[in-house]
Amino acid sequence: MVMRMDQLDLRQFDVHTDLALEAKEMAETANGGPIPGVHSDIVDEDGIKISRVHVQTEQGSRAIGKMPGRYVTLEVPDLRKGDTTLQDKVATKFAQEFETFLEEAGVNKNAKILIVGLGNWNVTPDALGPLVVENVMVTRQFFELMPDQVAPGYREVSAVAPGVLGITGIESSEIVLGIVEKTRPDAVIAIDALASKALERVNTTIQIADTGIHPGSGIGNKRKGLTRDILGVPVVAIGVPTVVFASNIVNDSLRMLEDHLAKHTTNAGSQVMGLMHKMEENERLQLVREVLQPLGHDLIVTPKEIDQFIEDIANIIASGLNASLHDAVDTSNVAAYTH
Amino acid sequence: MVMRMDQLDLRQFDVHTDLALEAKEMAETANGGPIPGVHSDIVDEDGIKISRVHVQTEQGSRAIGKMPGRYVTLEVPDLRKGDTTLQDKVATKFAQEFETFLEEAGVNKNAKILIVGLGNWNVTPDALGPLVVENVMVTRQFFELMPDQVAPGYREVSAVAPGVLGITGIESSEIVLGIVEKTRPDAVIAIDALASKALERVNTTIQIADTGIHPGSGIGNKRKGLTRDILGVPVVAIGVPTVVFASNIVNDSLRMLEDHLAKHTTNAGSQVMGLMHKMEENERLQLVREVLQPLGHDLIVTPKEIDQFIEDIANIIASGLNASLHDAVDTSNVAAYTH
Amino acid sequence: MVMRMDQLDLRQFDVHTDLALEAKEMAETANGGPIPGVHSDIVDEDGIKISRVHVQTEQGSRAIGKMPGRYVTLEVPDLRKGDTTLQDKVATKFAQEFETFLEEAGVNKNAKILIVGLGNWNVTPDALGPLVVENVMVTRQFFELMPDQVAPGYREVSAVAPGVLGITGIESSEIVLGIVEKTRPDAVIAIDALASKALERVNTTIQIADTGIHPGSGIGNKRKGLTRDILGVPVVAIGVPTVVFASNIVNDSLRMLEDHLAKHTTNAGSQVMGLMHKMEENERLQLVREVLQPLGHDLIVTPKEIDQFIEDIANIIASGLNASLHDAVDTSNVAAYTH
Amino acid sequence: MVMRMDQLDLRQFDVHTDLALEAKEMAETANGGPIPGVHSDIVDEDGIKISRVHVQTEQGSRAIGKMPGRYVTLEVPDLRKGDTTLQDKVATKFAQEFETFLEEAGVNKNAKILIVGLGNWNVTPDALGPLVVENVMVTRQFFELMPDQVAPGYREVSAVAPGVLGITGIESSEIVLGIVEKTRPDAVIAIDALASKALERVNTTIQIADTGIHPGSGIGNKRKGLTRDILGVPVVAIGVPTVVFASNIVNDSLRMLEDHLAKHTTNAGSQVMGLMHKMEENERLQLVREVLQPLGHDLIVTPKEIDQFIEDIANIIASGLNASLHDAVDTSNVAAYTH
Repeated sequence: MVMRMDQLDLRQFDVHTDLALEAKEMAETANGGPIPGVHSDIVDEDGIKISRVHVQTEQGSRAIGKMPGRYVTLEVPDLRKGDTTLQDKVATKFAQEFETFLEEAGVNKNAKILIVGLGNWNVTPDALGPLVVENVMVTRQFFELMPDQVAPGYREVSAVAPGVLGITGIESSEIVLGIVEKTRPDAVIAIDALASKALERVNTTIQIADTGIHPGSGIGNKRKGLTRDILGVPVVAIGVPTVVFASNIVNDSLRMLEDHLAKHTTNAGSQVMGLMHKMEENERLQLVREVLQPLGHDLIVTPKEIDQFIEDIANIIASGLNASLHDAVDTSNVAAYTH
Repeated sequence: MVMRMDQLDLRQFDVHTDLALEAKEMAETANGGPIPGVHSDIVDEDGIKISRVHVQTEQGSRAIGKMPGRYVTLEVPDLRKGDTTLQDKVATKFAQEFETFLEEAGVNKNAKILIVGLGNWNVTPDALGPLVVENVMVTRQFFELMPDQVAPGYREVSAVAPGVLGITGIESSEIVLGIVEKTRPDAVIAIDALASKALERVNTTIQIADTGIHPGSGIGNKRKGLTRDILGVPVVAIGVPTVVFASNIVNDSLRMLEDHLAKHTTNAGSQVMGLMHKMEENERLQLVREVLQPLGHDLIVTPKEIDQFIEDIANIIASGLNASLHDAVDTSNVAAYTH
Repeated sequence: MVMRMDQLDLRQFDVHTDLALEAKEMAETANGGPIPGVHSDIVDEDGIKISRVHVQTEQGSRAIGKMPGRYVTLEVPDLRKGDTTLQDKVATKFAQEFETFLEEAGVNKNAKILIVGLGNWNVTPDALGPLVVENVMVTRQFFELMPDQVAPGYREVSAVAPGVLGITGIESSEIVLGIVEKTRPDAVIAIDALASKALERVNTTIQIADTGIHPGSGIGNKRKGLTRDILGVPVVAIGVPTVVFASNIVNDSLRMLEDHLAKHTTNAGSQVMGLMHKMEENERLQLVREVLQPLGHDLIVTPKEIDQFIEDIANIIASGLNASLHDAVDTSNVAAYTH
Repeated sequence: MVMRMDQLDLRQFDVHTDLALEAKEMAETANGGPIPGVHSDIVDEDGIKISRVHVQTEQGSRAIGKMPGRYVTLEVPDLRKGDTTLQDKVATKFAQEFETFLEEAGVNKNAKILIVGLGNWNVTPDALGPLVVENVMVTRQFFELMPDQVAPGYREVSAVAPGVLGITGIESSEIVLGIVEKTRPDAVIAIDALASKALERVNTTIQIADTGIHPGSGIGNKRKGLTRDILGVPVVAIGVPTVVFASNIVNDSLRMLEDHLAKHTTNAGSQVMGLMHKMEENERLQLVREVLQPLGHDLIVTPKEIDQFIEDIANIIASGLNASLHDAVDTSNVAAYTH
């Protein structure tokens, strides 16, 4: 057994998380402390936890398996409860964070924006992107058709849902590149549903990143990314974890079990959990996968209430985008602009 | 009143029909006979009436208000009855006609095809194009990823639903042009929901045309077209009338009333219908519009059973496309490839 | 021709309108004045026209072809424009009217209510009832499970969508009667999509009636009704016209044409319209039907924007019901309680 | 720790499985052998595993936590692959099994059937019942309206989807009882989405039971059942697991881990897994729950492809019901009768 452990390929990205925050936490646990080249801070405001992770070096990037760049994560554990007042509060907070984030990413007040909703209409946990596109306010047609009559406080925004490879036969990045070349936006905002390693982050977390969308990320497993290199303009990504691998649920539960035992008993951890107690998290995850995958049990799952969750969080993001992109839309009451 | 009649602008396209067959019939009625430069023939096979209209000259084009080119129309009055056996028969006939049509349009057996589903998911009578895209078989990804392993009898097909201006902020023709430039198909097949001037043609008729999609046609009122000139490759259009203007219902009914009276009585037409009896169809339509439009009554309507109709006819077209585009899909049993 | 006219069966209910207001107007036109036994008044408040028709006698009932009882109609021509501020205003006004109406119908503040959403999920213009049921607030389960803990200001409300005969094989009235006998509500509120004779009333009009639902009314053509006689409790009906017969569009347009001609010219009516000018509206409608029906042209149609209309008006009614049924829900801000 | 173990309430139904087959397997594992009073046999036909579990005594019932009665389970691991040929085969096999099952349950060839689709339209993994109702063939209206004209080979079938408590305010069993009393069917067939304890059974398994639906079973957590006692007629239940508790995924994985270790090493189980190795499955599950539940992590999850799964399996069941209920529908080609 020990020998097999040594042979495991402990690549970080194998963890199946699209959240930089989770990748950083796992790397820190493995490392026993902070990762050089990765800076982070956390604030907790009114039930909304905001983490800022800055991957500053290539070394840091390799250590956590995420691209260099800035990642802002909003965590709202109560978001699953369907409280509309909280939803409005989150939309407002998201709008404020996103407005600041755009500025720091060099996307100015008048930059023309193309919003790209990645994912598949027909797969509920993958429908976030298309749903945001449907609910967001687009203005480009007015700038094109009657530029003199657009009220102040609005900028040029367009939005597309390029579909998925299985339905179109075309990589979404190729479709988006074609549209970018025709319509010449100054920046792209890409919305995608993500995988988390922890079930509790599903549908309670929003990640903003200035790194774009990378191959293999998200539910749909793109083979090509949406990045500044490919599209020629800054790409800001907004992602929400909506699914998790069964193996991650198991592994995460074993970690919680360990913590639970550590709190309640002395040396019970090793008694109850045996060698699993001493394994690194990555090792244990690999072990779980070795068992589940050949049996076809490492399914990707989503909470049973996913239909309502997706609708709620798509509205939060669409409202937040409207408020952060247009000065004329007030961040104090963003919800009125979507339905 | 008479004076006003003289001032009417009797442009053909004012009739609000996207069917060349209807435009031709109206022009013939007005003209009292065939239109020079417009050739047509009709065959009736087994409950499916197939009309071929060839607009051969600019003169013919102006006379009927449709672009020069070939138009094939399948009319199946019983299609509204929801008979699945008839639906399969129509899919098979459509596949045969479409295969021949492609050849005559210079699109050869191995031509790479991009299918474009115009219209709006959220407006049932305008959802035909997106629904066909969702149900059609796409193969381009296999040709791209594992070209050696694609079975014989298939060609490269991709499919996109570019959305509508009100949701994307971008003309669908711009989106399609961007995708065409990236993916280089040899031909485009564009599916669109149309307006008919006669309620009985709604959801019972399929038009195939080699003229592409022109500004102002279809439900969504494009401002830019999808044509060979714009896209650089042949564009074959498939359209199904799903809506009709209220004014056309009224006008068409008056024509039927006239026919009815003519059959049943002598000179009753003028007695019962007065001057309307003598008006040209276009004049009468203008009169009806003059009355309805200022009151906001010239609504665009669709049969109340539209949800089922759209689903059925989208399946017919998707099945037909699969059979006509891939030799490996048998025209005798096309329905099995869609759901 | 004249002879045939004499033979027409001019039954009022042939007009295919479920609106008492329209039936009354037609009867008055035919009668050249008010109908004995039918009292009505109209107020116009802030863009919302409210008509109250009281059919007081059997004679009046026969004359207009509607059951004796009270009918309140809200007409809001601008409702089709999708203005959310107007929608909130209409919901509030509807709530006020409905609250008063319930009281006058003898349904008191604490009466237990069963809301019945008639119609078919899968036919958009017939989906009003089920959509209202989905959006309305139900409380009966709390009264059953924890009666002591229900906050003041709420009453017991339950809601069902019984489906349609073609899908269930059971008359909706049988299903509702079964549920009424089990759950013993004090009153039933039934929501149904209706047919209007005028296209402009489609999706702009709400009718409240204390007569229940009668066989043959609504889109789904019930064979049995939902009435006090059948269910044993008061039945208040809420209806919204969402469809119209093509023949009614034609006939209504001819009437408008007549009015138009009368305004613009002397004796042009008879010149332009011939005998149709002199026909009674019912006669003319029968003539139009004689022509359209044998050709299968007398389809029932709905505006092409029906998807959005139905969603908007279902929200208005659900919000209005919440506010009028529960004191704790404020009529000044009813929209917050639905989504 | 050991003390706490003793205190655990090891009730079988805590396992959160609605499948008798799983309950029996767990009881056998705990018991180290067959359970007295529970008879079972298994056949494997052509990729479809059919288990028949007969709970014959009260003792057996208590031991496995399921009602006395017959349970037939079809397991088709490949059902998730979306192969339409396999789906047709499963529909046919299900139809044959169900036909036999009905006979053995004393429901004869001419018995009038009410099909009840439990669950919630708006929650995808709970939408199985309503979807089957929508796709199944109903005939009762023809027997009521034109009994002489019904073709031979059909029996009287009706179908309702009573909704869920949160939307209607009424227990589904009350609604069904009301309808049963009005329409007097000879038997009820109830369709419901279930919870499994093993992720691999989700969407691959169909259970048929003559015990009806019991409180707390299914996704919607009914408080009242649909049983012969309550409804007065035999109730045959058809269930498909569509969800699983996260704690069951963890526990099931630990069991697989144990098996894996046992195969690959000597005494590694106790080394790697510590005390967990020796725990009874129920003990371990309780331990996992103790950890997950307070943290809100014991979510109910469903595979991310649930939308397509539910649609496919609803079609299988609807097709199978059509074939088994009507002699005129051929079991060799059942799929043609649904869409």
